[in-house]
Amino acid sequence: MRHKIASLFPVITTVKHYRGKLAYADASAALIVTLMLVPQSLAYALLAGLPPEVGLYSSILPLIAYAIFGTSTTLAVGPVAVISLMTGATIANVNNALSYSPTEIAVALSLLSGLLLLAMSVLKLGFVVNFLSRSVIEGFVMASSILIIVSQLKHIAGVEIHGHALTETVSSLYQSVGDTHIPTLLMGIAVLVLLFLGRALFKPFLTRLGVSGHAADLVVRMFPAIMVVCSILVMNFTAAGESGIRVVGHIPNGLPAFQLSRLDTELFGNLFMPALLIAIIGYVESISVATRFAVKTKTTIEPNQELLAMGASNISSSISGGMPVTGGFSRSVVNYDAGAKTPLSGVMAAVLIGLLASGLMATLALLPKATLAAVIIVAVASLIDINKLKETWLFSKYDFSLTAITIVTTLLAGVETGVSVGIVLSIILHLYHTSKPHIAVVGLVPGTEHFRNVLRQEVETIPEIVGIRIDESLYFANATFLEKAVIEQVTQLPRTQYCVLLFSSVNDIDASALESLESIYEKLSNMGIQLHFSEIKGPVLDKLQKTHFYDEIKECTHLSHYQAVMHLSDLLHSSNTTKQT
Amino acid sequence: MRHKIASLFPVITTVKHYRGKLAYADASAALIVTLMLVPQSLAYALLAGLPPEVGLYSSILPLIAYAIFGTSTTLAVGPVAVISLMTGATIANVNNALSYSPTEIAVALSLLSGLLLLAMSVLKLGFVVNFLSRSVIEGFVMASSILIIVSQLKHIAGVEIHGHALTETVSSLYQSVGDTHIPTLLMGIAVLVLLFLGRALFKPFLTRLGVSGHAADLVVRMFPAIMVVCSILVMNFTAAGESGIRVVGHIPNGLPAFQLSRLDTELFGNLFMPALLIAIIGYVESISVATRFAVKTKTTIEPNQELLAMGASNISSSISGGMPVTGGFSRSVVNYDAGAKTPLSGVMAAVLIGLLASGLMATLALLPKATLAAVIIVAVASLIDINKLKETWLFSKYDFSLTAITIVTTLLAGVETGVSVGIVLSIILHLYHTSKPHIAVVGLVPGTEHFRNVLRQEVETIPEIVGIRIDESLYFANATFLEKAVIEQVTQLPRTQYCVLLFSSVNDIDASALESLESIYEKLSNMGIQLHFSEIKGPVLDKLQKTHFYDEIKECTHLSHYQAVMHLSDLLHSSNTTKQT
Repeated sequence: MRHKIASLFPVITTVKHYRGKLAYADASAALIVTLMLVPQSLAYALLAGLPPEVGLYSSILPLIAYAIFGTSTTLAVGPVAVISLMTGATIANVNNALSYSPTEIAVALSLLSGLLLLAMSVLKLGFVVNFLSRSVIEGFVMASSILIIVSQLKHIAGVEIHGHALTETVSSLYQSVGDTHIPTLLMGIAVLVLLFLGRALFKPFLTRLGVSGHAADLVVRMFPAIMVVCSILVMNFTAAGESGIRVVGHIPNGLPAFQLSRLDTELFGNLFMPALLIAIIGYVESISVATRFAVKTKTTIEPNQELLAMGASNISSSISGGMPVTGGFSRSVVNYDAGAKTPLSGVMAAVLIGLLASGLMATLALLPKATLAAVIIVAVASLIDINKLKETWLFSKYDFSLTAITIVTTLLAGVETGVSVGIVLSIILHLYHTSKPHIAVVGLVPGTEHFRNVLRQEVETIPEIVGIRIDESLYFANATFLEKAVIEQVTQLPRTQYCVLLFSSVNDIDASALESLESIYEKLSNMGIQLHFSEIKGPVLDKLQKTHFYDEIKECTHLSHYQAVMHLSDLLHSSNTTKQT
Repeated sequence: MRHKIASLFPVITTVKHYRGKLAYADASAALIVTLMLVPQSLAYALLAGLPPEVGLYSSILPLIAYAIFGTSTTLAVGPVAVISLMTGATIANVNNALSYSPTEIAVALSLLSGLLLLAMSVLKLGFVVNFLSRSVIEGFVMASSILIIVSQLKHIAGVEIHGHALTETVSSLYQSVGDTHIPTLLMGIAVLVLLFLGRALFKPFLTRLGVSGHAADLVVRMFPAIMVVCSILVMNFTAAGESGIRVVGHIPNGLPAFQLSRLDTELFGNLFMPALLIAIIGYVESISVATRFAVKTKTTIEPNQELLAMGASNISSSISGGMPVTGGFSRSVVNYDAGAKTPLSGVMAAVLIGLLASGLMATLALLPKATLAAVIIVAVASLIDINKLKETWLFSKYDFSLTAITIVTTLLAGVETGVSVGIVLSIILHLYHTSKPHIAVVGLVPGTEHFRNVLRQEVETIPEIVGIRIDESLYFANATFLEKAVIEQVTQLPRTQYCVLLFSSVNDIDASALESLESIYEKLSNMGIQLHFSEIKGPVLDKLQKTHFYDEIKECTHLSHYQAVMHLSDLLHSSNTTKQT
């Protein structure tokens, strides 16, 4: 019982072993993380089409919830780019029909994805996320980054644009080039250049000065916060303040009240699919970040507990009027580099952000939107990785085509459709792939007991005995193909008297495949060929032994392919001898 | 070119080699098949809720079309039970919204499924039907038979009932028990009993008289035709004619005119899913019947050409005002037993049915519906096979649960939903299954070079070298599981210095799995363990060699697991010796 509670609330173990030294490390990391989280949270709220304070609200309770339930010592939770993009798209699509404010929809969305994550945890459905293949993730991350960058160009140019889809945005941007607000553009470009230069020049400069790689990284990662402060100062103390550069504007001081009352079942019905995809994608993002750091810190991530923690984080975000959240990569890097030792550093960061939110809102009113847009652009630009695409192309055209289709669909129809198409397509392609399994005629590698593909290696064969290795588990999708392929192979080798199916790669067999085997057995009998089996694995043999078919083939199954071939060639010799005498 | 035409029109080859003896065999078979087809066609039209003549219209042109394009010498095409049931359900569901007559919907349905089959043939999408697993087919055939039998009880009892779903039909039947029309019931039961007795007693009786099994079978299969003739005679010449037994009634003489003009795109949109399922299920039924006889006649079935032939059959059915058709089992048995030698026997049967349709319709007006209902019930009763269900249960609980769920869903929600749920579920279960692959720690079988599961056989192991066999291709759905499982295994064996993944069952690897392998490599390195690979198959090695990862593992791949273990134990010994000296 006590053990169960401890595994449900990892925070208990942390608190038990907490000491001054750990607290110091956590606190200093929290300070640095806060400096990074504030501009990011504001920016991602803007990306989702929400008032900027919603971003801050989403970075307080979720941090605490994750600290209580999460199993990673490093993961930092809050709004992230892709999830904010998806939230924005959902708001744009749902808002037309129902009279909810964007914030209300975001709150409902984070509540619903939180509940779905909890349900997945309780029902142990974590395996569902496995259907999001590497190739699909790669595709939609790349496409989302492009969508995000394009969506922010309006803030950099200081123009109003209409529409949400990529084509609309681009054509609207093109039409309003003439309306570009020069002071905003200058501000935006200045921040962009400074942020990029920070990455490209300032870090090498610092390291040459003798600053450690870690520390230099941290300084560069503080650049967004520095840009926020600088642009507020510029707006306050220079002529830029009167130039009409669009700013974040008045933000209500203090924390939001609980506001779930207006939400109804119709809204939840509309949000179900987007919430599910946000839950799955958010979980995949956070678990992959958490796993990466677990390798470094030699700790363990418990996937099912992580589902629970993500669920709790999202529900707590909705309770405090926030948007969907997940564990982000860049903030977790900062947390790790800044030396956070336990999840309690997240709690400290939450307190700091809470203090900022309740005190400093008025100051943020002067923050230019162009600055936030530049922060977003720089954050996601690095996700567009052409080299990775090249590597995928080299590794497999099949994986590459999945990535390419996901990219194109995401760009043209949005993340939700892109990801759905990617998932469905990867399942169909996988089934198609396994529906035409690789089969190989095998022969003996001289001097060993091993059998290999006759097309790939120099091997010895006996014309009367054909060994066929089947390189796939047998199930409904490949049952008919198997039948056709085996008969074709044997027909091409007219001297065949025995056909031995080498089952070393057959890991499972279902009712459709059993029927195919029976049919192969019958057809080969008609051709005067006896069917044998070798190296049937335990689980497959267990199943076969329960069938009537097994009574017919019992005498024809052999432990190893070598034994099978030896036995059958003995039979051949003795029958030849009989014929001669 | 000539070869291409010949393979597109198999009939050309048949006609070239046609001779008097073949023609005689075909003609006598055609006569017998016609006697069987007429009552069946009328009955299945009734089952689909269509005027009986539609059944006849569907048994003329399709027979000719199949004879031209089909590759089976035995298959007889026309309305069949399951497809007629699905046609009926579609008519019941669509008719409410649009003002089309049942016949118009049936015609549109057969046109659309014909076009879909043609498209599948052109796009070589025949593999799609593989997704209909044995277990799902078994389930829906059994459930459809029950649905069909229940749907015919109203004709046997001579009552009107409302509703189409099973629950509605049953409760409506129950309520109208009091209205049972006794003469109809007597007629229905008489035909039912005679048909069953024919199967159970008359056939053994004939064989005992010295009649051959084949001939006895044929006589029994003519029973429906005999019953049709007898009941018409009874209605014509006895008091039964005035008792109010419901009859087929007036049927317009002659053949129907081309009537596709009224059909529009909205109707086709509504019919798309049902037409697709009818196309797939019809094709699966006909191809499995054709294959079964191809084994007996030692001929070959060309699946893609069969798609074309089925497409042509359905389109020609719609042109002549008919319903969806496919190759049926019982009529093909009759065709085979009656000695049909070429597809031209189908053409002859078509001519005979055409003559009957244009001349004998008036005679059929007196045919009681109860007789047709009894013919249907006896035809499908044999499909409810409890023994097969038991065998599936023994073979695999997993396959059985698929069958059971398909049965229940089909019974409660109809064939279309039942089959869809079955297909989707079998794909999900398959993916779930392969997402948690079987992995086994292996050891050397003493005195051989073979490695087997340590849990199943007495084998030799070296504590520092852990061999793990992975029993599944690696792809996105099992990539994370693999990582967790390998690390867990190795953690349980703390003396491990080398971990050798035995890849003999890994038939493919995708980008997600590659990432997992990299992650396993890194994690094991952190634990001080070196990762090795053995028996990587050609296609997998080809892919791996194109990655950066391969540069790291190149030295750690071994042709056979035996070589890997020998090499590593040498390394162990030499390092131990070094330590000792």
